[in-house]
Amino acid sequence: MSNSSVHGEFALIRDFLTGLGAPREDVLVDIGDDCALTRLPPGFELAFSIDTLVSGRHFFPDCDPTRLGHKSLAVGLSDLAAMGATPAWATLALTIPQAEPLWLQAFAQGLHRLACRHSLRLVGGDLTRGPLTISIQVMGLVKPEHAILRSGASPGDAIMVSGTLGDAGLALQSLLSRDKHPAAHLDPQLRDRLERPTPRVALGCQLVGIASAAIDVSDGLVADLGHLLDQSRCGANLELAALPLTEQVARVVTQQDDWAIPLTSGDDYELCFTVPQENLDQALALDNQFGCSVTIIGQVTEAPNIRLVLPDGQKMDLSEQKNGPTGFDHFCAD
Amino acid sequence: MSNSSVHGEFALIRDFLTGLGAPREDVLVDIGDDCALTRLPPGFELAFSIDTLVSGRHFFPDCDPTRLGHKSLAVGLSDLAAMGATPAWATLALTIPQAEPLWLQAFAQGLHRLACRHSLRLVGGDLTRGPLTISIQVMGLVKPEHAILRSGASPGDAIMVSGTLGDAGLALQSLLSRDKHPAAHLDPQLRDRLERPTPRVALGCQLVGIASAAIDVSDGLVADLGHLLDQSRCGANLELAALPLTEQVARVVTQQDDWAIPLTSGDDYELCFTVPQENLDQALALDNQFGCSVTIIGQVTEAPNIRLVLPDGQKMDLSEQKNGPTGFDHFCAD
Repeated sequence: MSNSSVHGEFALIRDFLTGLGAPREDVLVDIGDDCALTRLPPGFELAFSIDTLVSGRHFFPDCDPTRLGHKSLAVGLSDLAAMGATPAWATLALTIPQAEPLWLQAFAQGLHRLACRHSLRLVGGDLTRGPLTISIQVMGLVKPEHAILRSGASPGDAIMVSGTLGDAGLALQSLLSRDKHPAAHLDPQLRDRLERPTPRVALGCQLVGIASAAIDVSDGLVADLGHLLDQSRCGANLELAALPLTEQVARVVTQQDDWAIPLTSGDDYELCFTVPQENLDQALALDNQFGCSVTIIGQVTEAPNIRLVLPDGQKMDLSEQKNGPTGFDHFCAD
Repeated sequence: MSNSSVHGEFALIRDFLTGLGAPREDVLVDIGDDCALTRLPPGFELAFSIDTLVSGRHFFPDCDPTRLGHKSLAVGLSDLAAMGATPAWATLALTIPQAEPLWLQAFAQGLHRLACRHSLRLVGGDLTRGPLTISIQVMGLVKPEHAILRSGASPGDAIMVSGTLGDAGLALQSLLSRDKHPAAHLDPQLRDRLERPTPRVALGCQLVGIASAAIDVSDGLVADLGHLLDQSRCGANLELAALPLTEQVARVVTQQDDWAIPLTSGDDYELCFTVPQENLDQALALDNQFGCSVTIIGQVTEAPNIRLVLPDGQKMDLSEQKNGPTGFDHFCAD
């Protein structure tokens, strides 16, 4: 609510947010007009999703800006992947406390590199001053009837997940205890899983026609699988012994006899999807074809709710757990 | 960066952000999946724009939430209007300090009413906790070659503006001095111009084929016209005596002998557009056809920069003014 006289915002957008990502022929008007203008190839539908990352809530205020630029886009790409859509364009609404060219340049570089890898173009940007907040809308293309929804799972479908679960959560736990345990070693690969997640875009596109439903694991496996099951009006048996875990996460689970990290921690950005039995061979053939494993972790059931099948064969119904693990939610008591 | 256990975010989105705006047949997947999914009618291009409003910067923290919901969407609709695009869908990324159902309900209502008026559907939402920040991406449709760009103005074109200029700026000035002058009366209509602006959507669509270039006046006339002229590689003579002003703004200009309010204050969300001489009759015929006047305020020139033609006929070249009025910019010293 101030009037002033230097072309700060426009110069910053021009200098740092223009020309990010891969050039695309379907972009008719790029950053710099009232709107971006794009052309959809005939016969495609438009999938899009908006996500916000808030400093101190979704990332540490001292987070490396290149990693933050990467992650801001990765979160949206993961949503497109869960839908089986091919990334095309994105817009960025960036709110920053002050204009720091070095920070902006690094942020833009992280975003640019990941965008190029997925042939995506940043076609719109808004830069405002305020508490550090990043909203990105990603847009992708999908053929009619090809989108993978959350609502398509049926009893008997296998439940599968890409990659490994809980790595980002373990990295976060380690970073949160930095003050108490400054010398504790955090494996750089584990830290990358939190700060530079890999959206499973190619896998998501390959799942079209194979998976009956999909969601990305951003809030924790139990929470996100729960959303998928709610929308499919089904339940599930989840085999804990089958969960794909890195050595570090497996060690924590064993040492603490607690499955919270792989079941409830967010930010993994893996895909959780369901596969009808007749497509199971096709799905299993995708294992390690796109930079990640795919693993069967359970089965969709007619009976509602999620039942954890413990390694000893005992079942635990999550709906009966008063403080049962669900997932990350922004509006609960911390 | 916290794990917790109540379905706060999802319940809030379900209860307050679902079903907003007008239902549309081209929405295949509404709020509630990883992505929204929509179908473009054949032969249309996609125009879209993202904008952020930050509490304490773009609006007062105690702003009425219904008005805020209205304004958040109006800002985006105004961008579509400046492009000549017809509104279709929007996504909302809302960051709020805490979940207040009454506040959310009021915000949603303001957004919903304006969305319905323009047959727009809110198809995606993200709700996070943090400092109050609102990002909305609006998407609209435009036929090929029909989009009005900033770059199309030519020397000789008339410069026109919809409605009146400076009303929002005057209202803001009055609200900013509330503490000093608590008894000062603020005309409710003037306050509406700041808090419930009317995006000139119908006018924008009608300008297709008539206007050579357009921009919406969000940062102040001189700044926004400046962007249009930069992109058209032209200059302009701006006739101050011709500026369409409400009685209140005209009075302030006369009393203070200062044109800053109509020239440099933002938030009017009027359209500033250029019209080739051969289309001038068509443009003038739009006067008061869509709820606002349209007024010729100057002419595009080959000579660069903006020259203000004072009411006495004298010219003032803005590029020669050291502290000349430009417009609202978020990254300048306040």
